[in-house]
Amino acid sequence: MGREMRWWGWGEDDHAGSVSDAALAWLEGELGTLDAPRGAVAWEEVRLEDPRLPAAVRDRFGDILRDDRAARVLHARGKSYPDLVRQRAGDCTGAPDAVLTPRDHDEVRAVLEACAGAGVAVVPFGGGTSVVGGLEPLRGGFDALVSLDLGALDGLENLDERSQVAIVGGGMRAVELEARLGERGFTLGHYPQSYEYVTIGGCAATRSAGQASTGYGRIDELVVGARLAAPAGDLDLRAQPASAAGPELRRVVVGSEGVLGAITRVAVRVRPAPEVTRYEGWMFPGFGAGAEALRRLEQGGAAPDVARLSDEDETRLGLGMTGVRGVRAGALQAYLRARGVAGGSLAIVGWEGPDEAVRVRREVAVEALRDAGGVALGQPAGRVWVRSRFQGPYLRDDLMDRGVLVETLETATTWAQLFTLYRAVGDALRDHAPLVACHVSHLYPTGASLYFTFMARARRGEELAQWGAAKAAACEAIVAAGGTITHHHAVGHDHAPYVGAEVGDTGVAALRALKRELDPAGIMNPGKRLPTD
Amino acid sequence: MGREMRWWGWGEDDHAGSVSDAALAWLEGELGTLDAPRGAVAWEEVRLEDPRLPAAVRDRFGDILRDDRAARVLHARGKSYPDLVRQRAGDCTGAPDAVLTPRDHDEVRAVLEACAGAGVAVVPFGGGTSVVGGLEPLRGGFDALVSLDLGALDGLENLDERSQVAIVGGGMRAVELEARLGERGFTLGHYPQSYEYVTIGGCAATRSAGQASTGYGRIDELVVGARLAAPAGDLDLRAQPASAAGPELRRVVVGSEGVLGAITRVAVRVRPAPEVTRYEGWMFPGFGAGAEALRRLEQGGAAPDVARLSDEDETRLGLGMTGVRGVRAGALQAYLRARGVAGGSLAIVGWEGPDEAVRVRREVAVEALRDAGGVALGQPAGRVWVRSRFQGPYLRDDLMDRGVLVETLETATTWAQLFTLYRAVGDALRDHAPLVACHVSHLYPTGASLYFTFMARARRGEELAQWGAAKAAACEAIVAAGGTITHHHAVGHDHAPYVGAEVGDTGVAALRALKRELDPAGIMNPGKRLPTD
Repeated sequence: MGREMRWWGWGEDDHAGSVSDAALAWLEGELGTLDAPRGAVAWEEVRLEDPRLPAAVRDRFGDILRDDRAARVLHARGKSYPDLVRQRAGDCTGAPDAVLTPRDHDEVRAVLEACAGAGVAVVPFGGGTSVVGGLEPLRGGFDALVSLDLGALDGLENLDERSQVAIVGGGMRAVELEARLGERGFTLGHYPQSYEYVTIGGCAATRSAGQASTGYGRIDELVVGARLAAPAGDLDLRAQPASAAGPELRRVVVGSEGVLGAITRVAVRVRPAPEVTRYEGWMFPGFGAGAEALRRLEQGGAAPDVARLSDEDETRLGLGMTGVRGVRAGALQAYLRARGVAGGSLAIVGWEGPDEAVRVRREVAVEALRDAGGVALGQPAGRVWVRSRFQGPYLRDDLMDRGVLVETLETATTWAQLFTLYRAVGDALRDHAPLVACHVSHLYPTGASLYFTFMARARRGEELAQWGAAKAAACEAIVAAGGTITHHHAVGHDHAPYVGAEVGDTGVAALRALKRELDPAGIMNPGKRLPTD
Repeated sequence: MGREMRWWGWGEDDHAGSVSDAALAWLEGELGTLDAPRGAVAWEEVRLEDPRLPAAVRDRFGDILRDDRAARVLHARGKSYPDLVRQRAGDCTGAPDAVLTPRDHDEVRAVLEACAGAGVAVVPFGGGTSVVGGLEPLRGGFDALVSLDLGALDGLENLDERSQVAIVGGGMRAVELEARLGERGFTLGHYPQSYEYVTIGGCAATRSAGQASTGYGRIDELVVGARLAAPAGDLDLRAQPASAAGPELRRVVVGSEGVLGAITRVAVRVRPAPEVTRYEGWMFPGFGAGAEALRRLEQGGAAPDVARLSDEDETRLGLGMTGVRGVRAGALQAYLRARGVAGGSLAIVGWEGPDEAVRVRREVAVEALRDAGGVALGQPAGRVWVRSRFQGPYLRDDLMDRGVLVETLETATTWAQLFTLYRAVGDALRDHAPLVACHVSHLYPTGASLYFTFMARARRGEELAQWGAAKAAACEAIVAAGGTITHHHAVGHDHAPYVGAEVGDTGVAALRALKRELDPAGIMNPGKRLPTD
C-alpha cells in the first residue's frame, strides 16, 4: 500500500519543491504580477454529502470499506487542473460514498458483482494521478458510487528471470516494483511523470508512456499478459510473447481505463537493470533542426532511450524557471551565441544499459546530433533534468497558489504532419494563454509526440470556464490537424468527446459493444473514455 | 491483380520445384517405400453444385461477378493439407456460388450490404494461401456464399517517405508492394512463406509473421493504420505512430480474419531498402545450446534479423532433403565431427541493412554464437536457405503425389516454457508420424516460436481422419502446455475449437460481441476464428 497524496494537490509535503524567487520574477515578467500565495480552503470547509451506499454493499464489505471524510475526499478525483481547482475550493460534492480496498482478485470480483447487483457505480482507483478526469466521480445515473482502490493488490507475484517477465498485482506502485526488481538486478524502465505514485495496473489501464519509453517502449509494448475482473467475468490472458490468434485482447485490456473492469494483475516484460545511465543536454539552432535530428536517429535505429526536445519557447521557459541568472546566465548565453544556437532548442538525450553498449550507441548518436547543428551542453544539463523530472506537479501547486492557470496536454502524429499539428495547437492555445511551450518527448519510426504546457493568469472564480475554453480550443485543433487526442494521458472524461473523431462512429460502436458485453449494468467508471450520447 | 495458383496445389507450374531423387531416397529410408506419383483428379472430374446465388446479388454485381467453374474451384478453399486432399480428390462441393471482385472500397461496402440484406455468406479472399482453413466455404446456415476477392484493391495509394508510411490497397500482393517500394528505395520486409502470393490485407487479417520478422517486426507491429469495411459500417483508422486512446482498434482489425469485415486498406511502416543482406549457417552442438544462444542475443538487443534454429531432427531432415550426399556429405560430416557439432542443430542467421550497421551488428552476434559453441558454416549455407525459402509448399505437392502426409504447425511461448512445449508437441506428433522436426523461427525478448513439420505415409482414402488425429493431438498438447494455438498461421477453421482455452469464456464473449456489432447478420466468414457453439 502506498503513501497518500495531499487532498488538494500533488504528492506529499516532504517531497514538495517550490518555485524559486528567481523563477517567480521571470514569470511575472511574462504574465504580470502574480497573486500573493493562497492555498486550499481549510479542511473543515470541504463540502461533501453524507454517504448513501446501499446496505447490501456496505454491510457485506465492512472490513474493506472506509467512508470517513478523509478517505472520500482523497478518492474524490484525480490531479488534473480542474480537479485541483475544485478540490482547493473545497468542492467535494459527488465524492464516492465509500472507498473499498479489496485484498485479492476474488474480492475485487465480489465487489463488482455486488455493485452490479445493487446498482452502484464503481471508479477503479490506482495511484489517483489521472490528469484527464479519469477518476471524476460520475454516477452514470446510479444513486451510489464507490471508489475501488486496488492498492492492496501490490505484490510482485513472480519474476521469471529467464523469460524476463514479471507478474505484478494491478495495484503495485511503479516505484515499489522498481525497488523489488532492482534487488534482483532488473528494471521495468517505465517512468511517467506520475512515477512516484502511479500503479502498474493504472499505467496499463491508461496506456501510459514513460520518460524513457523511446528506449524501453510504451506500457502497451511492455504488457505481455493481464487479468481483468469485469462484472461479466474474468478476462485472464497469460503472458505470451506473440500470437496470431487475434484480435488481441491484451490490447483491449490495456487502455480500458476502468470502463470494462478492474485490472488485477499484469505481466510485464522486464530487462536487466542498466549498468550505466547517461543523460546530457544539447542545444539546437531551432526546434525544426532538432526534430529532424531526432527523426533521423529514430528511423536509423539509433535513437537514445530518452529523447526530449523543447521548442524555443519551452527552452526559454526552462531557462527562466530554473533560475539561471546573473553571471552564469550571461556566460551560458555568450557560449550559445558564439556557437550559433542562442535562442535555440534544448534537447535532453539519455542512454541506459551496459557500459559498452551505451558507449557505442552514444557515439553513433552524437555524430548525428553534431551533423544536425547540435551543440553539446554536457551531463550537467542532463543532471538538472534528472533531478527535476518528477517535480513538475509540485510546481503546479505552487503556481496555482499564486493564481496561475497551468496545464499540459499531449498528442502525436506522423513526422510529415508534426509541424502542421505543432503550429495548429500552439496557435489555438495562444488565444488563451500568453505562455505556450512544447516539447517532443517520444520518438517512433513513423512519428513523434508533442507535449504542450501553457500558462496564464487565472481568472479567480472562473478558472473552470477559462480552462475549458483553452482545452476545447486545443482539442479541436488536434482533431482538425489529424493528431491523436491523447498520446499518454489517456481519454478519461476530458477527452471523451473527441474519441468519435478519432475512431469514427463504427469504432465507437465497437467499443460500446465490448462495454455492454463485459459490463452489462454499465457500472464501471461511467462517463469515461467513450463519448456520452 | 496477381497470378492465380494451381487449383489442386501451390503456386504455378513454372515456379514449381520438385523433390530430388536423392531426397526421395533419403525419405524412403525414413518412411518406407513411397507411392508412384499420382496427381489430382482430372479437371473434368471436379465435382461442384450449380451456383444458387440470389438474383438480388447476382444481377446487381454482374460486372464484377464470375461463377464459372474455374473461378469457383480456385476460390473453393485455401492451401492447407486437408484443403489439398479434398481439391486433389475433386471434391469442391460447397464451393462459393460466385466470386465477386469489387474495384474499390465503396464497391466492397455495396457487396457486403447486399449480401447482408440477401442472407449470403461472404468469405474474403486475398492471396488464397490460408493453411488453417481460413477460406473454408462454410455457409453458417445461409443458402448461398460468395468469395470476396480483394485482388482489385491493389494500389500503392501513397508513400510518405518522411514518415516511412505506405498506404496500400488491402488486395495488393506483398511481392508487388516490395517491387513498387523497391523502386523508391524502401522495403516492408515482410516475407511469410506464402510471400509470392499473399496480399497485405491478408497478412493483416491473419496477423502473419515473416521470415525476417525478428528484425522487421510482425505484421501487427508494421500496421499503423487500417480501413475495415464491415457490414455495419466502416472502421477507418488513420496512420498513427502511437496513442493512449485505447482499446486499440487497429489490433482489433489486425487478426480479424474476415469475420468482422474486409480490410480494404492498410497503412504500414516501411524502411529504407537494405544496402546489404547477409545470411549464413551455424551449427550448434544441440537445439538447447542454439536456443540459449539466440535467447541471449535477443534479450541483449543483438538478435539478427533472421534467426532460425532447427532441432537435431530437422537438421538431419534438411541435410537429407537437400540431398547433400556422397563425397560432399562425407567431408561435411567429418568437419562437423571434428568441431564437435555432428548430429547438432543448424541455424540460419541473417542481417539486413546499411553495410556498416550489418558489419557491427554481425560482429557482436558472431562472438555470442561462438561463445555458445556454434561453428560457422559460412554464407553458402545461407544461400541454400535463401534459394529454397519459398519452395516448401511446392515440395509438399510433390510429396502428396507420392502419398506422403506432410503438415506444419506452429506455436509460441515464453523462454522458460519453451522446451516443455517443444517436448509435449513433439511427443504428441510422434504417435502419429515417424518424422517430426522443429525449428525456432521468431525471437522475442520474452519467448520464441516453435514451428513443427511432420511426415507420415498417408493412409489413402483416410487422409483427413489421419491428419485430424495428428492435428488434434498437437493442438491439445499445445493447449495443455500453455502455448498459443497459433504463432503466425492464424486461427481459421482448424484452430477455432482451441481459442476458448486461450482467451477464456469471457474473451470469447468479448470477441463475439465485436462480431455481433460489426456483422449483425453474421454473414462474414462463418465458422472461423471463434469457437462454434
